Amino acid sequence: MGTARVVFDKWEGRYAQRMDDVRSSAVRDLFGAASRPDVISLSGGMPEVSRVPTHTVADVAHWAVAHKGAVALQYGSSEGRRELRDVIVELMAETGVRLKADEVVVTAGAQQALDLIAKIFLDPGDVVIAEGPTYLGALQAFSAYQPDVRCIPMDDDGMRMDLLEAELERLGPRGAKFIYTIPNFQNPAGVTLSAERRRRLLELSREYDIPVVEDDPYGRLRFEGGHIKPLRALDPEVIYLGTFSKVFAPGLRLGWITAPKPVLAKFILAKQAADLCGSAFAQVTAERYFAATRWRRVLQSLTKTYGERRDAMLSALEEHFPPEARWTHPEGGFFVWVELPSFLDTGAMLAEAVECGVTYVPGDSFYPDGRGRNCMRLAFCYAEPERIEEGIRRLAEALDDRLHLYRAFIAAGAIPAEEGAA
Amino acid sequence: MGTARVVFDKWEGRYAQRMDDVRSSAVRDLFGAASRPDVISLSGGMPEVSRVPTHTVADVAHWAVAHKGAVALQYGSSEGRRELRDVIVELMAETGVRLKADEVVVTAGAQQALDLIAKIFLDPGDVVIAEGPTYLGALQAFSAYQPDVRCIPMDDDGMRMDLLEAELERLGPRGAKFIYTIPNFQNPAGVTLSAERRRRLLELSREYDIPVVEDDPYGRLRFEGGHIKPLRALDPEVIYLGTFSKVFAPGLRLGWITAPKPVLAKFILAKQAADLCGSAFAQVTAERYFAATRWRRVLQSLTKTYGERRDAMLSALEEHFPPEARWTHPEGGFFVWVELPSFLDTGAMLAEAVECGVTYVPGDSFYPDGRGRNCMRLAFCYAEPERIEEGIRRLAEALDDRLHLYRAFIAAGAIPAEEGAA
Repeated sequence: MGTARVVFDKWEGRYAQRMDDVRSSAVRDLFGAASRPDVISLSGGMPEVSRVPTHTVADVAHWAVAHKGAVALQYGSSEGRRELRDVIVELMAETGVRLKADEVVVTAGAQQALDLIAKIFLDPGDVVIAEGPTYLGALQAFSAYQPDVRCIPMDDDGMRMDLLEAELERLGPRGAKFIYTIPNFQNPAGVTLSAERRRRLLELSREYDIPVVEDDPYGRLRFEGGHIKPLRALDPEVIYLGTFSKVFAPGLRLGWITAPKPVLAKFILAKQAADLCGSAFAQVTAERYFAATRWRRVLQSLTKTYGERRDAMLSALEEHFPPEARWTHPEGGFFVWVELPSFLDTGAMLAEAVECGVTYVPGDSFYPDGRGRNCMRLAFCYAEPERIEEGIRRLAEALDDRLHLYRAFIAAGAIPAEEGAA
Repeated sequence: MGTARVVFDKWEGRYAQRMDDVRSSAVRDLFGAASRPDVISLSGGMPEVSRVPTHTVADVAHWAVAHKGAVALQYGSSEGRRELRDVIVELMAETGVRLKADEVVVTAGAQQALDLIAKIFLDPGDVVIAEGPTYLGALQAFSAYQPDVRCIPMDDDGMRMDLLEAELERLGPRGAKFIYTIPNFQNPAGVTLSAERRRRLLELSREYDIPVVEDDPYGRLRFEGGHIKPLRALDPEVIYLGTFSKVFAPGLRLGWITAPKPVLAKFILAKQAADLCGSAFAQVTAERYFAATRWRRVLQSLTKTYGERRDAMLSALEEHFPPEARWTHPEGGFFVWVELPSFLDTGAMLAEAVECGVTYVPGDSFYPDGRGRNCMRLAFCYAEPERIEEGIRRLAEALDDRLHLYRAFIAAGAIPAEEGAA
């Protein structure tokens, strides 16, 4: 222990200033607890990879090395393999976006794209606009470049355009480096930006000359309602991030970016500096998977699975959760967002929940400024329906303990009932 | 064309300041020319992956998904799989470094480690000490964090300790954030830091309280002379970067870092922000490769191949190159460094060389400040011996054209003969 202290002292004060702002991910820190078999994980956004046919993928991986070994085992180009970019062009066309392969760069998951977009655009103090709450991995990636992240609240139709406009008016033209949005089944809120608001968002983007960064990991995982075209389909200036993690598997760490050519040129420079090039081994495997397997069926089966799990979670919430709680109704994706009475602190409650055998992610992880303490993100993607129901039951129990006192105070007139609480 | 100009104008002035310093890699830009079959590539440091038994690796990849699919296809931990870190511990033990698995983090090649080390340590203007010339990928990675890179010249025994000491004296204690060195078969110079200088380097590191970052991609590829222990074997405070790209295959993009615990904790935070986690698919494949195949034989065969190619290059240089040229004698690795009379500009000569059917990397790519213009890096790793000989012959021809005039001037006494030129 003494030695550890000395080492610690030796290194303190040597790091770059940016590291002051980089926090550990609460989700990551929970992975330990979440892996105990008695604990039901409603925290991590892990896809149900067991629906991906393992033996088919094993054959595909074998083929990739046996038939394309000279390529798969070697360094590749920084922009990624042409064949995989062709697959991406096809996937994007199906969502309504027409692209050419040279408008696409393959990345190590969408996370690398978030990091590099921040790297090429953000000087310390630059403003970024995001939804509030927003994806914690984006906050983590951005934080290393020390921006001022302004969060715009959402309702059931996604980011509120009146509040965005007010913020843009305060900031003025080019007053932010970009507007970061997850329009489909937002992480963590689960809500979807309506078609009307998408048009409005792009109008505002043009009016204030601030580009939009569209992050769309879940767009293909819709189990209710009709497809809404990506922002990129409406405006070629939109920077769009996609990922294979949800339509195939996260273990290959493959995603992509499409952006205007000058941005892409800067992006490629930043990517060369970050890793020289992506994994050709993973890329050849993925391109073969999309060329040679019934991947659409797998995706359908995955989506059906997530839909059933969402149903299980929503009914369990209805049945077990206290009347003071409110939650969103996702039409796709992985997550439900729960809002609790403002005096509750979901961060402080977490250890108790783990004790009860269930995990979630505290809401303040999704804000840069400590907001969201009375909220939590629940993931329905990973646990089986019965486990979800049991998890929600356990969580309701933990909540109930805390709410008893609250109700007694309200009944005694000691504190006012919260506005809008059911 | 008109449209492209408008788009370009729209995005200019929006990027982060750091992007002003990030240049494209000359090596990367050459990949196009180098892939023409009539052009002999002496430029890229691509390993000879054809020596890696493709069908064995195909079986290994199949096994990874078929038997460990639930892990290989899923997100993993940020520090990398324990099983692969155990392989790394074993590899490091063979070079004389004793480690525990929790002192190791798996990275996306050593390049990611270079990027993240710079990210956690460097504020704009911070001094980094490196060899001159040094690895251009390191210069690229560092440049995004805007450091002041000071290059210390080398001789046949590596970085000159007298010049390092003089620089450290100017800078004072903690006057640089770290000293970056490639002690074995340096890229691009091909020279090796002697055992005596390794000890001296560590003394100076302690005296001036400046950590050493040891980058060791080629350490296992020695074809002449005895093994010299890594700096990390002599001092646990050394930050050591390793890679699987040369002992296995670059297409998996796997490397590692070992560093003091507090540094590793910061590093993991930066890695989470950069890509959440590495590819479990690649990691399971690699750990199986090292557990289940005769990888040592493959490595021996690879090393033998590189040794033969170095021999081919050194004899071809001896036979064809002009007497004014000097070059290094690498005992391992991939590269020979050639120094030409100072009036020659290898960057300006490159197009002509490609015309003659051969590529190399101009020397100034390996300096942050334009030095090295009269030098070139020649890679012997990738071309067959006969191709190397032919490539050197073509290059000598291109050189001869330029040297004719020089000799005529010297003969006429119009310019003095350069000191030291043979």
